[in-house]
Amino acid sequence: MILDIINKKRLGEELSYQELDYFFNGYLNGEIADYQMSSLLMAICINGMSDEEIFSLTKIFIDSGDVLDFSDIPGIKVDKHSTGGIGDKTTLVIAPIVASLEIPVVKMSGRGLGYTGGTIDKLESIPGFRVDLSDEEIIKQVHDINLVITGQTADLVPMDKVIYALRDVTATVSSIPLIASSIMSKKIAGGADKILIDIKVGNGALLQTKEEADKLSELMIKIGKVYHREVRTIISDMNVPLGKCIGNSLEVLEAIDVLKGQSDKTNFTELCIELATEMVSMGKNIAEVEAKKLVLEVLENGKAYNKFLEMVEKQGGNINKIKVSKNELEIKAESAGIVKDINALELGKLSLALGAGKINKDEKIDCTVGIKLEKLVGASVKKGDLLAKLYFSKNIPDYKLEKIFNIR
Amino acid sequence: MILDIINKKRLGEELSYQELDYFFNGYLNGEIADYQMSSLLMAICINGMSDEEIFSLTKIFIDSGDVLDFSDIPGIKVDKHSTGGIGDKTTLVIAPIVASLEIPVVKMSGRGLGYTGGTIDKLESIPGFRVDLSDEEIIKQVHDINLVITGQTADLVPMDKVIYALRDVTATVSSIPLIASSIMSKKIAGGADKILIDIKVGNGALLQTKEEADKLSELMIKIGKVYHREVRTIISDMNVPLGKCIGNSLEVLEAIDVLKGQSDKTNFTELCIELATEMVSMGKNIAEVEAKKLVLEVLENGKAYNKFLEMVEKQGGNINKIKVSKNELEIKAESAGIVKDINALELGKLSLALGAGKINKDEKIDCTVGIKLEKLVGASVKKGDLLAKLYFSKNIPDYKLEKIFNIR
Repeated sequence: MILDIINKKRLGEELSYQELDYFFNGYLNGEIADYQMSSLLMAICINGMSDEEIFSLTKIFIDSGDVLDFSDIPGIKVDKHSTGGIGDKTTLVIAPIVASLEIPVVKMSGRGLGYTGGTIDKLESIPGFRVDLSDEEIIKQVHDINLVITGQTADLVPMDKVIYALRDVTATVSSIPLIASSIMSKKIAGGADKILIDIKVGNGALLQTKEEADKLSELMIKIGKVYHREVRTIISDMNVPLGKCIGNSLEVLEAIDVLKGQSDKTNFTELCIELATEMVSMGKNIAEVEAKKLVLEVLENGKAYNKFLEMVEKQGGNINKIKVSKNELEIKAESAGIVKDINALELGKLSLALGAGKINKDEKIDCTVGIKLEKLVGASVKKGDLLAKLYFSKNIPDYKLEKIFNIR
Repeated sequence: MILDIINKKRLGEELSYQELDYFFNGYLNGEIADYQMSSLLMAICINGMSDEEIFSLTKIFIDSGDVLDFSDIPGIKVDKHSTGGIGDKTTLVIAPIVASLEIPVVKMSGRGLGYTGGTIDKLESIPGFRVDLSDEEIIKQVHDINLVITGQTADLVPMDKVIYALRDVTATVSSIPLIASSIMSKKIAGGADKILIDIKVGNGALLQTKEEADKLSELMIKIGKVYHREVRTIISDMNVPLGKCIGNSLEVLEAIDVLKGQSDKTNFTELCIELATEMVSMGKNIAEVEAKKLVLEVLENGKAYNKFLEMVEKQGGNINKIKVSKNELEIKAESAGIVKDINALELGKLSLALGAGKINKDEKIDCTVGIKLEKLVGASVKKGDLLAKLYFSKNIPDYKLEKIFNIR
């Protein structure tokens, strides 16, 4: 039976709900070995899955754990997910914006495996900030202040946890069907009424092409339909990092600057406004023009920032204690010209080498290290101008300036 | 590095010798996990391998262990391999034929995982017969009587042992490149000068189509060229079982009947003559017509049978003690007609259910059980005629007569 199922997918045939259920739950229960699951996952990566198979798999994922129910909280609960990229701290900005407009936001986020930390790792760089709220605490806090950002509870889609861990070490991450069912199962089990997905495309992202992003987008909207959830998607660029900062503490500080209105306009501020606008449009059932007005308002009048401070306080954090490494290295331009490009992937690798990210689950992220860009794409620079600062802790990793900054 | 290699093959790209060497030896050394190897194996199964990759892999397999050297034994050493099928006991007949014609035969055979036992399992049904000869014993015996059939020594292509065990449980067996490098590495490391391969095609075989068999044949001949070994291939039918008997003791007794000239002419006797003719043609560098004459001669004058008896004696066996279960079940025709077809695959499943084969390495084969066909394809039968006898030990498995015999 186990081998029959793998063989079917090896030959590119469609698996039934029963077959997928048997295999994936067999794996979760320890009856099917990881080498058998990885063999099936690779066959899925290469031969794909039909829509029916993807719906089945999403259901199997959701059914593997608890499904949260926020129906007694008034209002439309809107969730947001990003497929991840270098310098992506949008959640820290948009969740407070949306919550300050009286739309309840319960955001369960993950840790990072890869170049940089995940949202939860970033929040943990705020000393004292708790990311392990119980179901009861979550419900109380969203009742009180409309906003919670916390780690996924252990019982939310446990199947995804084991499958993702295996995909991560078997080169089976880049599969549109597997990405779609992983994300959508978590969002649906997380109790959201409406879901906004930020799909990143580029060298610093999981997906490299617009075609793949379109396919993923289409698939997630379809899955949403099956579960009567409105799903909107935004496809955004990840060839260039988001904003100026990469690294956990640095990114929290940058998010705070944006919420306080003290930040220059960057691709990060633009994306925050775009995503928040969509969420508000969904949460209030209003047009995007109208929603955007509200978003800009709460950024200007400080309501969004106050909401952020409320959340930090409720969850025990203290933003005055955020630490950035005192060891700085200035990176200066070796020639004059215009910054044509800043390579997200190369910065991701540098961030990882500094210790801001991790590859193995057992490693620890150093939240004080990172990179701050002082010149962004389009800036004109003179020889000797400060391009970026590295905040390091133990060692300065090797890097090649010309691979990061394309100045011509 | 590990993930980069899997990713390349996932995308259908070619792996270098260095990459394959790193991955496969890393696995053999325990540095690469089985779930990573199975992921790569599945990518190879689906996306294939170039000739260069297959040559690299074969070399890596050979280099993983000892290479036997029979150069001080005079004569051309000819080896033979069958990709395996239901009722395939040809080695037991052809090795003595060839050896009796003064061509040295050193045949290292395997155990069976699947429907029936392998050659080594079959020989072990001769009480006392040793299949664990040392390198020294092998060389002495081939010097003395020109003939040895024994199990593979532990040091012969250890890579194949671990990879095959993993392929077997991850549905990655049916890959022409993996089959070719597995077989050819063992034959080349086994010290043969010339190699004959019997490629089976049909429902009871690894390969289902003539096209796959042609591809495998072409590939093995190419690998042979790289190592300056003449390789000949025969593609033979495995939709119908070979001969009358399936099951370990029963098959040895059938082989003895053929060697004694006491057997009816069946597809099995024909294949034995065909294969032995090729081996003699290769071993003596003579035309096939001439070789066939010699083969028929030693079958008629008893020399081939005497050679078999010599081997059994040297290796400690006693053919008078071969045991077949006393529990017989007669299968009789339920209607009259002509036997149009006998399904090899169904008989294989029945053989496995009787205990003549095994699926897990830990199971034990029962050499006394099996199936003896009393009517072969083409026979005309009356209702109530004896079609076959089942020799069972514990239980009689379920079977459907009409799935095995097609009588119309």
